[in-house]
Amino acid sequence: MKKIDIFDSTLRDGAQGEGISFSADDKLKILQKLDHFGVTFAEAGNPGSNPKDLEFFKRARELKLDSTKLVAFGSTRRKNTGAEEDENVNALLSADTEYVAIFGKSWRLHTEAILNVTPEENLEMISDTISYLTNKGKKVIFDAEHFFDGYKDDPEFALSVIKTAEKSGAILIALCDTNGGCFPEEIGNITEKAVQAVNIPIGIHCHNDSGCAVACSMAAVKAGAVHVQGTFIGIGERCGNTNLSTVIPNLQLKAGYDCVPKSSMEELTETACYIAEIANVKLAGGMPYVGGNAFGHKGGMHADGVAKRSESFEHIPPESVGNERSFLLSEVSGRSTVLSKLKSFDSKLDKSSPETARILNRLKELENAGYQFEAAGASFYLLVLKELGRFQPFFQIEHFHVISTQSYDTEEINKANAMVKIKVGSRYEITADEGDGPVNAIDKALRKALEVFYPQLKKTHLVDYKVRVIAAGDSTAANTRVLIESTDGERVWTTVGASKDIIDASLKALLDSIEYFLYIKAEEARSATARKK
Amino acid sequence: MKKIDIFDSTLRDGAQGEGISFSADDKLKILQKLDHFGVTFAEAGNPGSNPKDLEFFKRARELKLDSTKLVAFGSTRRKNTGAEEDENVNALLSADTEYVAIFGKSWRLHTEAILNVTPEENLEMISDTISYLTNKGKKVIFDAEHFFDGYKDDPEFALSVIKTAEKSGAILIALCDTNGGCFPEEIGNITEKAVQAVNIPIGIHCHNDSGCAVACSMAAVKAGAVHVQGTFIGIGERCGNTNLSTVIPNLQLKAGYDCVPKSSMEELTETACYIAEIANVKLAGGMPYVGGNAFGHKGGMHADGVAKRSESFEHIPPESVGNERSFLLSEVSGRSTVLSKLKSFDSKLDKSSPETARILNRLKELENAGYQFEAAGASFYLLVLKELGRFQPFFQIEHFHVISTQSYDTEEINKANAMVKIKVGSRYEITADEGDGPVNAIDKALRKALEVFYPQLKKTHLVDYKVRVIAAGDSTAANTRVLIESTDGERVWTTVGASKDIIDASLKALLDSIEYFLYIKAEEARSATARKK
Repeated sequence: MKKIDIFDSTLRDGAQGEGISFSADDKLKILQKLDHFGVTFAEAGNPGSNPKDLEFFKRARELKLDSTKLVAFGSTRRKNTGAEEDENVNALLSADTEYVAIFGKSWRLHTEAILNVTPEENLEMISDTISYLTNKGKKVIFDAEHFFDGYKDDPEFALSVIKTAEKSGAILIALCDTNGGCFPEEIGNITEKAVQAVNIPIGIHCHNDSGCAVACSMAAVKAGAVHVQGTFIGIGERCGNTNLSTVIPNLQLKAGYDCVPKSSMEELTETACYIAEIANVKLAGGMPYVGGNAFGHKGGMHADGVAKRSESFEHIPPESVGNERSFLLSEVSGRSTVLSKLKSFDSKLDKSSPETARILNRLKELENAGYQFEAAGASFYLLVLKELGRFQPFFQIEHFHVISTQSYDTEEINKANAMVKIKVGSRYEITADEGDGPVNAIDKALRKALEVFYPQLKKTHLVDYKVRVIAAGDSTAANTRVLIESTDGERVWTTVGASKDIIDASLKALLDSIEYFLYIKAEEARSATARKK
Repeated sequence: MKKIDIFDSTLRDGAQGEGISFSADDKLKILQKLDHFGVTFAEAGNPGSNPKDLEFFKRARELKLDSTKLVAFGSTRRKNTGAEEDENVNALLSADTEYVAIFGKSWRLHTEAILNVTPEENLEMISDTISYLTNKGKKVIFDAEHFFDGYKDDPEFALSVIKTAEKSGAILIALCDTNGGCFPEEIGNITEKAVQAVNIPIGIHCHNDSGCAVACSMAAVKAGAVHVQGTFIGIGERCGNTNLSTVIPNLQLKAGYDCVPKSSMEELTETACYIAEIANVKLAGGMPYVGGNAFGHKGGMHADGVAKRSESFEHIPPESVGNERSFLLSEVSGRSTVLSKLKSFDSKLDKSSPETARILNRLKELENAGYQFEAAGASFYLLVLKELGRFQPFFQIEHFHVISTQSYDTEEINKANAMVKIKVGSRYEITADEGDGPVNAIDKALRKALEVFYPQLKKTHLVDYKVRVIAAGDSTAANTRVLIESTDGERVWTTVGASKDIIDASLKALLDSIEYFLYIKAEEARSATARKK
């Protein structure tokens, strides 16, 4: 199988994504995860650009990386100066990495309108910078910025740029579709020309502005590129970079290429979730291969089919990328969806079990009251546990009071206040807290009371909160459904609550979230003790 | 330019997306938006599947659609029965649409392992169903389910299915990559074979499980397909369907095809935002063409470059799809959209008016605070009135108090209590009421106070109430956006409010709703008086 090197730019291009801001710690964690997963290169910023990056490279040197080469990133020297005098080029050396990536212009428009240099000066800037870095012992990857737009505008000009990079000592040329506007076919055709023009390996770097970054990268590989750049979960400027968590399984599981160690493939989903967590972004449920819903079946017919023959409705087995099949419960899906879910829970449960009938009844009752379990796996799990008599409550709520007060002679919003009393065993705890709005206030008060008994709850927090009003009519009085997504930094779970009162609905979802976490933790402790014995 | 028909399945395949649940009202709104935008077909469910869909088709018949044909969707008849006796097939007729789409199996695995029928029986089910519907005067679109997997497995079998559909009277065959696992090249090659095999038009229906749905659809068009199916913002089962808001501009702005009226292209972003609002999903910031960040420049170099020559870092001009370049991170809607909205409001307002600048600034400010006006026309209207100095307040809120109390020794939910004091002219009114939850309580108390002065408010009530949490982080404290839809029995209007506090956000949307109604009524009274004079 042909080897394709994977080059991850989460720490550089990914950092340009909307709302992304990595600390040096974050970057080190992601780098180690990428190394564990087995990408060939991980690109970070320029140590000269800011002190955070300088600290990062210093600390990264102390890591023992098994499979990943860390790459520092910068540009060719400025015009009218030698590379040895250019402080950005020299800053690259301070990263002390074996590899550096530098980008240079390969579109005539850019040299003329942005840099204001002649084509000859542009080539000198490239050759001068690469030679200087090569002489300093660096392995230089040359990013041919805007190569495809440049080639379409003036093929000779674009090819002269990469030939110059080769002659100056670059070890690899990455062709960049910097604006993300190209289509797979033109990427394939132009990559072929580049592969013919030079004798060093060619890489591909795409952006997703036409929604084709993955397909474009694959077209380039087919045309001879042996190195694919992107970011692990697709984050990046504008519409993002090539999503590596999509392109890696596409190439390795379906197109016969060899990108990462075979054993890594089952860690794909976990790696994507981990990076999303560090980057503080919500991984889209529908992200191919790794999304929480990537193998979620909602239509009753599809759910039936996949239960009969999984390949009939799944393009790959979900476990091959460490993901899971799920059956979303909804009005469209049939009884069979619930049954297969119950089966994965306890293989003895089938159509005729009395427990199954009880669970189905309870489900119907709750759905009529406005609950929906399709996106709330943790609440479904608790419901089943409770119906099977396997759940011991960790606490009880005695009562709560929430007060919101607002006067409109000021722009400022008052905090809402909540008071809550709970019972754990025979002990009571009453406390209060304030928050932005009634739900936040009661969330905080409840946690404050519970943490007296369950300090492990401090690790958990909400990551998403959704409200949906269900019935029409006089709508502020309609039924309200609340979905809450929580995390403890390792796993993510979703719970649901429904009520006429939004506070009550929120509290129900919140209680499920807390009970689920406490149950899972107690189970983990139990099985750890069992293993020791 | 070659015409490509766009077939939107937001109301059918989109409804299979995680967390999507459309009311009949939601569906009617989306249908009208699609018609206004100019897609050729919009597919909804089967009126036989549930009462909501039955109601939808009934009410849809009363709409006057200019450019969009509504399509009812179902499957081929069951085995061992005639089409005329199959209740699902007959239910399709009750939709009373000119077009129906039915799907049938084109993968041998499915006929054998899922349906348990012979290839001959499968073909009979297809021909029988299509003939029956055609004889009833329907134009039948045949969805060849799993066509590509079926062709790869047994080309003859797959082609026999579409030839049978053609012979039985289908007007078009949509080739489906139901599992979403195919790559563009194979889609292109196999589509070509299908185009050669039949004499009726071919369409393409892709899913995004390999992250290639857009590229696959384009490959099919290149191979001769003249009809592209998808959902406007890509929602759908698992990883979603082909994203039409990406494929339409790809085809029409960059590949030389003709999909929708030229003038619609500038409404692309607004249409996508509107559909996302109705579906209650957050449009991904990085969604190609329409995302809030699709033309957002974060890297300093790119921002500089784009300021010098926009084409140097943008694949298309953002205004061509009604989006906007941004250098900040925000959810700002297209400036050109706003301008054309202002023009319809007051024809003297143009780019250079100081009022326009003031309105745009205020808009940006509010959008940064979490407001979104795409689906809240009444709030936008009020905002413009206020900035133009044409709005006289009808009342002021002095203060409110809301108290929610709950004890958990009973299943019953306590009412929430609200007390509110308002000022109208120099008169004050203080009153209280109770309701299901704090928002309902304050809605009722406020109306009770206001009706003393404005009894016409008794005719109004809320018809929908939606809550969206905007930022991540500690999410019960995140920014909250509330959309409220109100009616007086004659017209329907939507308003928006945003705040850290859900009660405050709801109240803001509620106040806009009341102010809008009072203003409109006052204007009507004024012009009636003027007419009499």
